Amino acid sequence: MKDNTIERLKAAVWQANLDLVAAGLVSQTFGNVSGIDRERGLVVIKPSGVDYSCLKPHHMSVVSVETGELVEGDLRPSSDTPTHLVLYRAFAGIGGIAHTHSVHATAWAQARREIPVYGTTHADFFPGRVPVTRLLKGKEIKSDYEVATGHVIVERFTRLDAELVPGVLVAGHGPFTWGKTAHDAVQHAIALELIARLASETLRVRPSAGEIPDALLEKHFSRKHGPGAYYGQKPVGKP
Amino acid sequence: MKDNTIERLKAAVWQANLDLVAAGLVSQTFGNVSGIDRERGLVVIKPSGVDYSCLKPHHMSVVSVETGELVEGDLRPSSDTPTHLVLYRAFAGIGGIAHTHSVHATAWAQARREIPVYGTTHADFFPGRVPVTRLLKGKEIKSDYEVATGHVIVERFTRLDAELVPGVLVAGHGPFTWGKTAHDAVQHAIALELIARLASETLRVRPSAGEIPDALLEKHFSRKHGPGAYYGQKPVGKP
Amino acid sequence: MKDNTIERLKAAVWQANLDLVAAGLVSQTFGNVSGIDRERGLVVIKPSGVDYSCLKPHHMSVVSVETGELVEGDLRPSSDTPTHLVLYRAFAGIGGIAHTHSVHATAWAQARREIPVYGTTHADFFPGRVPVTRLLKGKEIKSDYEVATGHVIVERFTRLDAELVPGVLVAGHGPFTWGKTAHDAVQHAIALELIARLASETLRVRPSAGEIPDALLEKHFSRKHGPGAYYGQKPVGKP
Amino acid sequence: MKDNTIERLKAAVWQANLDLVAAGLVSQTFGNVSGIDRERGLVVIKPSGVDYSCLKPHHMSVVSVETGELVEGDLRPSSDTPTHLVLYRAFAGIGGIAHTHSVHATAWAQARREIPVYGTTHADFFPGRVPVTRLLKGKEIKSDYEVATGHVIVERFTRLDAELVPGVLVAGHGPFTWGKTAHDAVQHAIALELIARLASETLRVRPSAGEIPDALLEKHFSRKHGPGAYYGQKPVGKP
Repeated sequence: MKDNTIERLKAAVWQANLDLVAAGLVSQTFGNVSGIDRERGLVVIKPSGVDYSCLKPHHMSVVSVETGELVEGDLRPSSDTPTHLVLYRAFAGIGGIAHTHSVHATAWAQARREIPVYGTTHADFFPGRVPVTRLLKGKEIKSDYEVATGHVIVERFTRLDAELVPGVLVAGHGPFTWGKTAHDAVQHAIALELIARLASETLRVRPSAGEIPDALLEKHFSRKHGPGAYYGQKPVGKP
Repeated sequence: MKDNTIERLKAAVWQANLDLVAAGLVSQTFGNVSGIDRERGLVVIKPSGVDYSCLKPHHMSVVSVETGELVEGDLRPSSDTPTHLVLYRAFAGIGGIAHTHSVHATAWAQARREIPVYGTTHADFFPGRVPVTRLLKGKEIKSDYEVATGHVIVERFTRLDAELVPGVLVAGHGPFTWGKTAHDAVQHAIALELIARLASETLRVRPSAGEIPDALLEKHFSRKHGPGAYYGQKPVGKP
Repeated sequence: MKDNTIERLKAAVWQANLDLVAAGLVSQTFGNVSGIDRERGLVVIKPSGVDYSCLKPHHMSVVSVETGELVEGDLRPSSDTPTHLVLYRAFAGIGGIAHTHSVHATAWAQARREIPVYGTTHADFFPGRVPVTRLLKGKEIKSDYEVATGHVIVERFTRLDAELVPGVLVAGHGPFTWGKTAHDAVQHAIALELIARLASETLRVRPSAGEIPDALLEKHFSRKHGPGAYYGQKPVGKP
Repeated sequence: MKDNTIERLKAAVWQANLDLVAAGLVSQTFGNVSGIDRERGLVVIKPSGVDYSCLKPHHMSVVSVETGELVEGDLRPSSDTPTHLVLYRAFAGIGGIAHTHSVHATAWAQARREIPVYGTTHADFFPGRVPVTRLLKGKEIKSDYEVATGHVIVERFTRLDAELVPGVLVAGHGPFTWGKTAHDAVQHAIALELIARLASETLRVRPSAGEIPDALLEKHFSRKHGPGAYYGQKPVGKP
């Protein structure tokens, strides 16, 4: 008998990968989305370098979050899988991860510049600047590159909460975002791309643009997140 | 028996919300359009945080313009509803309001810079620079944020006529536009986005670009607006 | 009996107007294309302010090139008609005219800057910089604005050949392009938008970018134009 | 009896030309893709100035790589054919070539600036900066322009390996890319356009942006290329 939980996760991760393409965040075979089943300790992720148009749910790779061993699937998992695994181990509260080379977020990652909080669109998703990692050292790149990429992200989050800050820019590379599910991770990838694009356009209009006041940042973030949130619809069954 | 006037307004506001999406001005669930029935004192507005692809006319929220009380609808109205209500109360001549986070208008709002009148496309819609509000104060943000957003717009219009100037940039946030109907408000949102984009591109070509002469501004604005207008077709029945 | 020549011209001008929209050069009801029947002295042009999605060939307005009088059609012709007529009278070799507010060409018109010849794409269409008119004077704007717009273009072409230079930027307004037919005018509008966009992007990469050598400019222009042209297919029946 | 190898090559080159359009790299009739049958010494290439929407496999021109003579086809081959032939003769390892006027790559070609290695997306495709040719001299332009364009590319590759570096920017003109097949050449054209766009956006965010360390460049390039590659799926039959 098939493990229905994993089948459902494969379908959800497959759909999230297609959503990434539909949102225009992917060029060629770049980009990948994964999701985790915390109970079974299994991560479902896109296979490496496969054309999105041919992708089916059964192509998804299933790997152990602890060992990285391929548990299910005939295809090699995404070459970025070790990065995902490091993040799942370090950030216990996340359930899905997305990685893209989307134009504007990648430009900020390449410029190695934190995205300032220029407006409320940013504050609706991030409770402060979008963080950037340091560059990897030669030694880290040569030994176990994808694992090191994960570690440099975790290092950047030493004093940040991954459940509040839903993504990061890897210096010279591109964005990683995450959320409670693979779907949420993709929504945050879309939001980060918009935030980055708005910031780039703001710089064009006024290179010395200032950030919004902390009170406005906090107001917008808390409208959507946390116990006092009043944006969107109340979940069914809540008072 | 159903109130047909309100049903028609719900259909019109629903359509205007979809037009906003079709025009590419909306990302994720950002943005909302409303319309008012002045006779009944009722405002129809998009519910909060609902996916546009699922939106139906009967989802529209109906609230009292005076009290903000939900009169009809099962869903929470847009979290920006209090801002809309303040504007309907202050600007007696408007019948519809649109709010977006469209890229270029939002970039100017984030840069907190009035859009100069660089060309006739601008002058076809605005009789001068596109105004920007001041930033909200910490106290205003913390007490009744969405109402304060409305007040800061009204304050900016102390010496401006909202029936001639069809929109504003809220500092650090984004554009609000309006018009005689919800449909007109959306048309002005589209126009404002084009005006903002043209201005950004003009700055790229010549950072010190100058504005057009007042005579040209007045000519183009009056071609489309006011008693001497000669752009478009004469309304049926007019001489 | 219907005048078949005019019916065919109306169909061609109608199609050219739709091509302008399909090419993404038009926002809202901006933009218009016309064509002339030199033998009959009649100009076919888009009606003013009509939604492109509703436009049919029989909506096209037919006016006298000499008097501007409406000869056929129930709708008011484009408010830019007088500009088109001035150009048809001054430039005997042209058969079609297109006017747009396309983003990049309009940005250069608003910046009042001639587009430098940065590359061969430009040289494939224009034998030199894209010219810009002077600004209209207050007197010209107030008396007969659209006619004055035509005159300021003709003035700019005092030492230019409109059969070689297929368009112009009207300062603070936008581009006008032309060609042997309405179809050609639209093709030139598309080319001018691409040239303007390439130039803007070139400035971003190197603000002090230099123009290509005259020899390269002449080579590319003559590959496509004039007696030695060898780009594209030989017209049927030619040796 | 038909030569099936050439028929298959015509179909592949035809498809590659359509892929170029689908990828948004082509405006009007600009751009062309070719493929070579090394055994027969025949090059299949798009005909000159033909509308992409009308293109069929049997329209493809077949020319001799040595003499440039038209071997098959009723239409004049692309005016850039002599450039393609020079490259096929000089670069023995390539099987397909693509030429576009895509916006961002062309902007860098017009700016005559090598594209710096700002990030790993670049390093996934190019093992260093994207090279730019020198400008052609007046004499070269006037005598045999398209052949000279080929020579100036080959000259730029004196110390570069065309099998590792999959493309070049021709100064003041635009990009040429190549690969093992016509399909690969188009994939590299798409990648180069993305690399160029990312670089332009990086400059906007930080005009003084630095390049990534050599170790990171080498890591990413070797992940996808050469004997140690581990990106994508193993070819069938390989261990």
